[in-house]
Amino acid sequence: MIIVLRPDATDEQINHIVDKVKGLGLKPWLSKGVERSIIGVIGEEDILRIQPFEAYPGVEKVMPILTPYKLVSRDFRKQDSVIDVGGGVKVGGSRIVVMAGPCSVENKGLLIDIARKVKSDGATVLRGGAFKPRSSPYSFQGLGEEGLKYLAQAKAETGLLIVTELMDVRNIELVSKYTDIIQIGARNMQNFDLLREVGKINKPILLKRGMSNTVKEFLMSAEYILAGCNFNVILCERGIRTFEDSTRFTLDISAVPVIKRQSHLPVIIDPSHATGKWNLVGACAKAGLAAGADGLIIEVHPNPEEALSDGNQSLLPEKFSELMVDLKKIAQAVGRQI
Amino acid sequence: MIIVLRPDATDEQINHIVDKVKGLGLKPWLSKGVERSIIGVIGEEDILRIQPFEAYPGVEKVMPILTPYKLVSRDFRKQDSVIDVGGGVKVGGSRIVVMAGPCSVENKGLLIDIARKVKSDGATVLRGGAFKPRSSPYSFQGLGEEGLKYLAQAKAETGLLIVTELMDVRNIELVSKYTDIIQIGARNMQNFDLLREVGKINKPILLKRGMSNTVKEFLMSAEYILAGCNFNVILCERGIRTFEDSTRFTLDISAVPVIKRQSHLPVIIDPSHATGKWNLVGACAKAGLAAGADGLIIEVHPNPEEALSDGNQSLLPEKFSELMVDLKKIAQAVGRQI
Amino acid sequence: MIIVLRPDATDEQINHIVDKVKGLGLKPWLSKGVERSIIGVIGEEDILRIQPFEAYPGVEKVMPILTPYKLVSRDFRKQDSVIDVGGGVKVGGSRIVVMAGPCSVENKGLLIDIARKVKSDGATVLRGGAFKPRSSPYSFQGLGEEGLKYLAQAKAETGLLIVTELMDVRNIELVSKYTDIIQIGARNMQNFDLLREVGKINKPILLKRGMSNTVKEFLMSAEYILAGCNFNVILCERGIRTFEDSTRFTLDISAVPVIKRQSHLPVIIDPSHATGKWNLVGACAKAGLAAGADGLIIEVHPNPEEALSDGNQSLLPEKFSELMVDLKKIAQAVGRQI
Amino acid sequence: MIIVLRPDATDEQINHIVDKVKGLGLKPWLSKGVERSIIGVIGEEDILRIQPFEAYPGVEKVMPILTPYKLVSRDFRKQDSVIDVGGGVKVGGSRIVVMAGPCSVENKGLLIDIARKVKSDGATVLRGGAFKPRSSPYSFQGLGEEGLKYLAQAKAETGLLIVTELMDVRNIELVSKYTDIIQIGARNMQNFDLLREVGKINKPILLKRGMSNTVKEFLMSAEYILAGCNFNVILCERGIRTFEDSTRFTLDISAVPVIKRQSHLPVIIDPSHATGKWNLVGACAKAGLAAGADGLIIEVHPNPEEALSDGNQSLLPEKFSELMVDLKKIAQAVGRQI
Repeated sequence: MIIVLRPDATDEQINHIVDKVKGLGLKPWLSKGVERSIIGVIGEEDILRIQPFEAYPGVEKVMPILTPYKLVSRDFRKQDSVIDVGGGVKVGGSRIVVMAGPCSVENKGLLIDIARKVKSDGATVLRGGAFKPRSSPYSFQGLGEEGLKYLAQAKAETGLLIVTELMDVRNIELVSKYTDIIQIGARNMQNFDLLREVGKINKPILLKRGMSNTVKEFLMSAEYILAGCNFNVILCERGIRTFEDSTRFTLDISAVPVIKRQSHLPVIIDPSHATGKWNLVGACAKAGLAAGADGLIIEVHPNPEEALSDGNQSLLPEKFSELMVDLKKIAQAVGRQI
Repeated sequence: MIIVLRPDATDEQINHIVDKVKGLGLKPWLSKGVERSIIGVIGEEDILRIQPFEAYPGVEKVMPILTPYKLVSRDFRKQDSVIDVGGGVKVGGSRIVVMAGPCSVENKGLLIDIARKVKSDGATVLRGGAFKPRSSPYSFQGLGEEGLKYLAQAKAETGLLIVTELMDVRNIELVSKYTDIIQIGARNMQNFDLLREVGKINKPILLKRGMSNTVKEFLMSAEYILAGCNFNVILCERGIRTFEDSTRFTLDISAVPVIKRQSHLPVIIDPSHATGKWNLVGACAKAGLAAGADGLIIEVHPNPEEALSDGNQSLLPEKFSELMVDLKKIAQAVGRQI
Repeated sequence: MIIVLRPDATDEQINHIVDKVKGLGLKPWLSKGVERSIIGVIGEEDILRIQPFEAYPGVEKVMPILTPYKLVSRDFRKQDSVIDVGGGVKVGGSRIVVMAGPCSVENKGLLIDIARKVKSDGATVLRGGAFKPRSSPYSFQGLGEEGLKYLAQAKAETGLLIVTELMDVRNIELVSKYTDIIQIGARNMQNFDLLREVGKINKPILLKRGMSNTVKEFLMSAEYILAGCNFNVILCERGIRTFEDSTRFTLDISAVPVIKRQSHLPVIIDPSHATGKWNLVGACAKAGLAAGADGLIIEVHPNPEEALSDGNQSLLPEKFSELMVDLKKIAQAVGRQI
Repeated sequence: MIIVLRPDATDEQINHIVDKVKGLGLKPWLSKGVERSIIGVIGEEDILRIQPFEAYPGVEKVMPILTPYKLVSRDFRKQDSVIDVGGGVKVGGSRIVVMAGPCSVENKGLLIDIARKVKSDGATVLRGGAFKPRSSPYSFQGLGEEGLKYLAQAKAETGLLIVTELMDVRNIELVSKYTDIIQIGARNMQNFDLLREVGKINKPILLKRGMSNTVKEFLMSAEYILAGCNFNVILCERGIRTFEDSTRFTLDISAVPVIKRQSHLPVIIDPSHATGKWNLVGACAKAGLAAGADGLIIEVHPNPEEALSDGNQSLLPEKFSELMVDLKKIAQAVGRQI
């Protein structure tokens, strides 16, 4: 940590800070410059981070040097983590994982039809929401446990694994019973109580990036889960909020290589929620794989006109089939397979 | 709702949409233009909003006309809502309400000292976190129930009302027992299960705007609470996320008049979290009152160097006293009192 | 255009608006709804757009239906524009165009070395700034005409075409004399006098998106150039400003398919300026091609440590060679060649 | 400047950097930490800033310590600058300066009427655009020199000073002839050639903040003007681009105290362009004064329905009169006068 002093900082103020640092058991070094003096402290930054040095008289600003996360960091683990989600499916290895399905679980027949279709095109995980976070209290809120049961039946019929969202800490056992991967949605990325709870179990967690969270905060939320001893975390970039209004969110494609450099955890892309428009999903899915993502999560619905949520961003099954053909070519071009 | 058609929309596609609208019991009107044709449907927009018309063939885009919220709207209630938070304190009337106190509750003696101090300067509500949302799992997470008890004791000693944050649905009874106003933090503004729960009780709720949520989404989250029959909602603008990095967030001062035009609910400003720097708090607090806010929530700590959270943004008690003198002048200039 | 009326709009106010619309020679239709009434006017939206209807009493908001651009639109021209930049190089066809070179032109020998290198790897256009937009008045501002001469010599030596930036309207003849493609930088995307001037010549223009401009505004700036009769415009996405700070800007990858749907103009990606970090350039370049971009502009410098500007984001020639191998695979995967 | 090394940096790499720093005539100090080592260099940061140390092998990141601006800084000049704009009007002193008038100069009679009106309410500077930056090439572009003449006549009639925008370097003499203050618009804040030119004259410059520029970049653009020896710069906050869409831009009210701490230059607020809506102008104008701004620039038009630009955000003269009454109270509350 570097503490930058104000040009008018007095010796008394400087000594006060130096003493404080020493009192914490650390070794400060003071460096006097022409325009500014600074105090540096190397190592054990965790002890320093919680000290509000910016509130000390004579201090202009404080600059941390180390990243605040530990367990998710490449420094902690050099090689890529490969998350085994069961049924022979692994996220983070050379094989790209495609998760596909409807936004919401709506009825059993439809769900099983979609499941069969996406499986035949190469998807290995079925997505579908039983509990839906909706900005309006008057919108369809999901089928709840009934939806979870339909997902389980679709799994039984097709062998696809299941990923579905958990919103409420009180439902953790219920959702765990039916799903292979628990999704934590973007709006709950900083619901710390929820993160702590899913850190206590050992199911794979698909953690979506909050719409206005930095990559650093995203990794800190993953850290909550790993700190609870659940290392099975898959990160998902799903678009951030910007001023651009031709898409629902702005897919932050560079988050893929940024995360790959900072962390050992696998990362996938959600082009459906990022763009909000089915006719932009394909281009963004291809870009995601080309940028190095380990997988994709894509919304598919045979009749978007009748979808109870997000019909605008769902691909028709035939469009999904075409896209999968294209994605296989891109995967090959980057030395991977689907 | 206006459905804008593509220039190449066929008669068949147009008829399909018209029939769909009629099937919902509504009356469409088709208007053919030189470059674009459109289909309009007036009234009962709620029925339409959940139809994914953008997914229909021949449709270019869909433009809603009505706001999606009802109960929080000025259309629903013309006059300003005044929330009675108990002890003779009302938020939304001519008297400005100042809530002040430490970021976190740290120990009893300190808390009671601060409470006495801010009361003597004109604050009527004591703030302090017992459960703290922290981006790092390694930061101080709050004292929990012990902190709530200290708040209750500070109330008993000083007569100040209490506002404190609820993060976890499982703690709703616990927190309710000790506090006069329940705060829902920015990171939980779209934790819909939590919103639904606090909609079922009738304690006043201080709902903070999410760091990247629009005013419209903010009002929709308030709508969740009102829809549960709890009309005692106080809105709080606390800064939004932008590219500017000289402050922690960017205080959206125009949100005050925007909300006042759209909604009957009272709105207060949190200049401490918005700026993240104690030396910017005063200017932003004054701006808030001048813009028409009904109150302020300000962090005060006698020894920011030792604060366990957010020391950088806490005012020293003597700075708070000076600010209150200034605020009284601004309040008077806009025809109100503190 | 749809004019949404306030719930309390009087008949007199409504008639006033209706009369105004008729007075402009257009046909309004009034539709009375339960909660809101609206007035629609279809066609000739240009006449309406400049009327400040939102300032009329009784009006709540105004919603335009048509896009404000004409000549750049897919409605104006269905097929993709292919820009012939000379020397057999065409932007927008099946062949991907790679522009590469140093950020700034620094000295002749170095420039010619880089030119030879990037040509051997498949680049067909040499980039290099002679006039540099720098946020600090104390930074290196470019070599000016001397730099242009070096570019011309590099062209003579290698046969590569040249792209370089024009910042000042007074230099238009000077820069035109030496370059094949004139670049308008992000900071000048809304320098309307400059846009008008380059609209009067018929050299190809590489128009970079402003760091905080929407795709719609980007297309409007291109419209300025086409409206002057210069249809040879290549668009360039180079990152937008967001809250994310792990990259210099956020590459808006979805802008590629969005622009492709809205406009017939070709679009290329600048991964060097978008990310600001050489080790992220490759992933973003690949993503750009996968998303459908028609080309790339990439910074290459044999000795980034000594570069007079933007050394942090320049690829070493050997890294560029490796990347070109990867890019050829991606191009093939999307049915194109480099 | 602090150079943070990668955990795997070799001694050879470290020595290479240390030698480079010494070669620049500066003194590096190396500090080895448990998790990271760093190299610090204090003073003469200008020499270092242009070195791309992030491109050096073994370097993780580089953190500048000093601000990149000099002449605009409080370090350079402790006391507030007061800009004498002529006619006894000074910006930055205890008297608040109000600039008011139409967005565009449209016709002489109207302009003089508005001038008389705003003067009678306490404005001392008349605003009005003769050259207009418009996002569409088909919008009204201003009257040009004819508009400048009308402004001069309005000055002759009323004694108000004039502020008008300069867009094109070629018009600098023309515009200077007619105006007291030259405005550099938000879209030209980083038009460096234009900044350099207005740095060479000694007329007061009203520099508007770019819609997506940080305060630091804003001050760097002012630095361009001061570096040319024109110290008469007035800064203007006019809203930044964010995701919020209920206003045209988001007024960054905290920029006022931030700038006041960093710089000695005066700062004013433009609530008209920031909000884009006349009914939000008053609240934001009051907030601006309360936050410490030295003045305001406000659009006024007697017949917004007929305004050729920005009618939606113009105040009616009677609304302006009412606002001035309120503003005088706020000015008094912060110890100033209008």
